[in-house]
Amino acid sequence: MSIITLTTDYGLKDHFVGSLKGKILSENPEVQIIDISHDIDPFNTAEASYIIGASYLSFPKGTVHLIGVDIERNKENQHIAMQWNDHYFICADNGILSMLTQKIVPQKIVAINIHDRFPIEATDLDIFIQVASHLSRGGLLNVIGKEISSIKEATELQALVADDGNSIKGNIIYIDHFGNVVTNISKRQFLEISRGRPYEIVMNPKSIKTILPNYSAIATSDKYPIKTYEGEKLAIFNEAGFLEIAIFRSNPSKVGSANSLLGLNYRDVITIKFS
Amino acid sequence: MSIITLTTDYGLKDHFVGSLKGKILSENPEVQIIDISHDIDPFNTAEASYIIGASYLSFPKGTVHLIGVDIERNKENQHIAMQWNDHYFICADNGILSMLTQKIVPQKIVAINIHDRFPIEATDLDIFIQVASHLSRGGLLNVIGKEISSIKEATELQALVADDGNSIKGNIIYIDHFGNVVTNISKRQFLEISRGRPYEIVMNPKSIKTILPNYSAIATSDKYPIKTYEGEKLAIFNEAGFLEIAIFRSNPSKVGSANSLLGLNYRDVITIKFS
Amino acid sequence: MSIITLTTDYGLKDHFVGSLKGKILSENPEVQIIDISHDIDPFNTAEASYIIGASYLSFPKGTVHLIGVDIERNKENQHIAMQWNDHYFICADNGILSMLTQKIVPQKIVAINIHDRFPIEATDLDIFIQVASHLSRGGLLNVIGKEISSIKEATELQALVADDGNSIKGNIIYIDHFGNVVTNISKRQFLEISRGRPYEIVMNPKSIKTILPNYSAIATSDKYPIKTYEGEKLAIFNEAGFLEIAIFRSNPSKVGSANSLLGLNYRDVITIKFS
Repeated sequence: MSIITLTTDYGLKDHFVGSLKGKILSENPEVQIIDISHDIDPFNTAEASYIIGASYLSFPKGTVHLIGVDIERNKENQHIAMQWNDHYFICADNGILSMLTQKIVPQKIVAINIHDRFPIEATDLDIFIQVASHLSRGGLLNVIGKEISSIKEATELQALVADDGNSIKGNIIYIDHFGNVVTNISKRQFLEISRGRPYEIVMNPKSIKTILPNYSAIATSDKYPIKTYEGEKLAIFNEAGFLEIAIFRSNPSKVGSANSLLGLNYRDVITIKFS
Repeated sequence: MSIITLTTDYGLKDHFVGSLKGKILSENPEVQIIDISHDIDPFNTAEASYIIGASYLSFPKGTVHLIGVDIERNKENQHIAMQWNDHYFICADNGILSMLTQKIVPQKIVAINIHDRFPIEATDLDIFIQVASHLSRGGLLNVIGKEISSIKEATELQALVADDGNSIKGNIIYIDHFGNVVTNISKRQFLEISRGRPYEIVMNPKSIKTILPNYSAIATSDKYPIKTYEGEKLAIFNEAGFLEIAIFRSNPSKVGSANSLLGLNYRDVITIKFS
Repeated sequence: MSIITLTTDYGLKDHFVGSLKGKILSENPEVQIIDISHDIDPFNTAEASYIIGASYLSFPKGTVHLIGVDIERNKENQHIAMQWNDHYFICADNGILSMLTQKIVPQKIVAINIHDRFPIEATDLDIFIQVASHLSRGGLLNVIGKEISSIKEATELQALVADDGNSIKGNIIYIDHFGNVVTNISKRQFLEISRGRPYEIVMNPKSIKTILPNYSAIATSDKYPIKTYEGEKLAIFNEAGFLEIAIFRSNPSKVGSANSLLGLNYRDVITIKFS
């Protein structure tokens, strides 16, 4: 049984996600459909990029990932399908796959060109559904598009290393359900630049001097119950491999969160200074 | 594999939807259960009516649609099951199917009469689960109810044509995840009345003179990037066939939405005037 | 086809739930995954306990219930798997199963001890996924843990009977989607103590004198339409068997709810006095 995942900004109130699933099942009744998220901030391709990059590897090879964020086709936005690390991605060419392609070269990318085969009322999503169903049945990319060699890069998503190699300047690219803030500084980049040097994570007006291996490592002493540490700030590389600033056992509506307690917001700068 | 869809006002926080699915799978382990929405405004049968009307056709023929909104059985609210356009609908007779039956005559309607076969603790939802499982296994309507010839109409859901035929007066019946507002003026009704005449969509104190074929059509010139048009108001017939007032690339918490920017709210009047 | 249910505080915005499902399907492609709730208040084991206790019986015997709330393994929090009433539960030993074990003795409990077989990067959730997949394939508890005889009790979850037997003092343990508040006073406990005596439910400064068999029973007269009763307060034993204070046809954003209209909040005391 093959899998199609869905990542959209459609929300769960409306019928859009249900209709999307109904149409996919009408095309391929055997496929298993799994929601990754439907609460992407509307038209926010950076969030979608982070979410799909953080999750796709949890699925078996051959999975088809349909990304329904900012997909209306126009002069700036063509439809693409990409095979990458033995997964398939269907989206608009709007930089949304940058966080993937930063790391590994795609196996194949096609510009989808089957639009003319559809009636005039067909929506952009109808095209994506057709392509996803085709790929989930083991169909080839060449049948639904023309091969292209590159896609748009969203450069604002990348953390920058200073010329002297003594700091990495990143941004907050995502705020999660617990109010933890995720930056675009990856563990790989950190290890490459740090070479074992001491460091400090600077986020005005506060800083953190240690990146923990996991949340519970905040409890440095066995003398006190874990509860004592609730509300303390910490830094870890999260399961997606990115630097995250968190509050231990945060709860946005009670204890507070990195977002609320530290005043950290989407696009804020976080710098790691090495000494 | 047959499909049961769910449309309820149960929300996703509680266990209600999970329990509902567990009970359905206990009755029919082979069925595929698809959520349409669980965020219907509590007891709002108009919203549920719009959502099910807008989505059911995306599913294969034979799909069973369980509508769990305002289902407590009482003197005013009997339980019905309806076959219509080769789909099955299970709900209370509270006007919720009006938006469907406005368009096509039902194939068969039954008043569910199996309540006596259940223990006293059985809930109204338990009855619906039994009926849905029965129909999903290919069971007949006659086995679970007594045929009736008509159901309740929710007349407030219908847009009205003025006596002189020079205007259509509708209402906002739904506000979607993007803050776009949907009216009860259908494309079919518009085409029938307009007969090619110029028109103006009036919503105090603003108006719109053109209904676009799709959102991106707001970009009337190729000279400027699409982004230039963000925040502009527009009108389209949405995928469900109803007139929708939208803000291009709206985002309720940032750009704003038709709901917030134009002050349009549930039940507000929208009129199309022909000249 | 076996079933794994999910109850977590991960929320639906992030990719966490999608990734969790992808990993389960990578381990066991044949399993059916059903969401019970992902909106448990973060780290709130009392809420999780209520939700799983209220819903597990809706699923077929043999179902595996994975509870992802407060699962980081540390000196106070070991991982357990429990067979109980022919269902399987996987969680941290943090009192979360107290509402189940109050009622029936577990068939078998093991402390999960397979952590050493995993690479250092494996998360606590990865362990749970492995255990859930193993059990969903019919695997034995002994293979993944060492039998233990008892688990932690969360005593604050239990309603107390006064020494003279003339009152039961409970707390609000859950506020549902409709704003109805659920107490920890069970129908079983009520029947045991009441022995048919008159009673009054006291919640300062208001009280209720009758527990209704269902919501619609609020309509005591046939003379008026059901709508007349909207907004009235009532008490019932809900489908989970616990005393619930509700507003008839409540809607937190319109009519108001028990939570908003009666000022009832999480942990507030509700007493039943018998006379």
